[in-house]
Amino acid sequence: MNSIIKISINGQGLYEITHKVTQKVAESGINSGLVTIFIRHTSASLLIQENADPAVMRDLEHWLNRLVPENDDLYTHTLEGPDDMPAHIKGALTAVNLSIPLENAELVLGTWQGIFVWEHRHMRDEREICINIMGG
Amino acid sequence: MNSIIKISINGQGLYEITHKVTQKVAESGINSGLVTIFIRHTSASLLIQENADPAVMRDLEHWLNRLVPENDDLYTHTLEGPDDMPAHIKGALTAVNLSIPLENAELVLGTWQGIFVWEHRHMRDEREICINIMGG
Amino acid sequence: MNSIIKISINGQGLYEITHKVTQKVAESGINSGLVTIFIRHTSASLLIQENADPAVMRDLEHWLNRLVPENDDLYTHTLEGPDDMPAHIKGALTAVNLSIPLENAELVLGTWQGIFVWEHRHMRDEREICINIMGG
Repeated sequence: MNSIIKISINGQGLYEITHKVTQKVAESGINSGLVTIFIRHTSASLLIQENADPAVMRDLEHWLNRLVPENDDLYTHTLEGPDDMPAHIKGALTAVNLSIPLENAELVLGTWQGIFVWEHRHMRDEREICINIMGG
Repeated sequence: MNSIIKISINGQGLYEITHKVTQKVAESGINSGLVTIFIRHTSASLLIQENADPAVMRDLEHWLNRLVPENDDLYTHTLEGPDDMPAHIKGALTAVNLSIPLENAELVLGTWQGIFVWEHRHMRDEREICINIMGG
Repeated sequence: MNSIIKISINGQGLYEITHKVTQKVAESGINSGLVTIFIRHTSASLLIQENADPAVMRDLEHWLNRLVPENDDLYTHTLEGPDDMPAHIKGALTAVNLSIPLENAELVLGTWQGIFVWEHRHMRDEREICINIMGG
């Protein structure tokens, strides 16, 4: 069973979508199986990380921005703006899909784990995510 | 349903395999479900990235080569050549498996997404990829 | 079918769990399908890499420690110790889940591929991993 969710984005950062995934799981009526989340873009990615202290998310973003800076002389793909090629590289270093087992109608996430879209571009946008649920 | 595809490689770079995966999906007759792609190697990986502008692929490769250079004094695993330990590190930073939902007998890839083998070694080789298709 | 395995950890490093996953596959009686491994933590991750030469694992760990050092002035999330924020970043750069096709009751791992928990913190701990097996 597949469904699409759309996420409104307003610039770089982590956008938690755990509740949206949980809602799709509830609607599916599936009790035990596997949930796969897939992002249909090449300049944003998916992440499971701590959702308790906002400083973790901020440090993650700052660290990745330093590792993959804009205006690097190495880039030749520059037509779509200074944040585009860094966004592709960040996308390649992180996940385009996540799979989480489902047990007793709940994702088996750990206590501190949240599911995020990691937006790598500056603009306001809408991102599409496909959620696949297998099982019974 | 599992099948193996073999990809001829001739040195470092990105080799698009989207059409090969699509063909296996068509052969399976499965309409809705989940496609998982798994590479059976530790010095090559899988990537979903933009397949429109070749400059994106070239910049990705150059950037990763700069991040993980050959002949780094840190390496102690050097017996298999200067490109071997960088290849393992690049493999660890990228994906060994990808999962893509299948709907109406088509992968739900975004407009700009292609599936690639990312070869990290210099030699001519053949890489094996297993494609698993679940669903009905 | 889901089951939980617990891994005793004693500081940073790679802990091979291939045999534990293989055992769960054997217990399941499932012959063909997909095995998904999910780690329920944000400061440890999962890795498929070469399990033949221990130097590969040592170099991987040293390289990642150099890329993501402790006591970096960039970090603001420092309350849980100097190894905590680097552990989250390392977790974000590596995998929280792995999916491996299953054929003839065996994981389709390549000759040199082993499955590891990659612990990023210094302490003694126990990590929980959920193994999902789909198929028939």
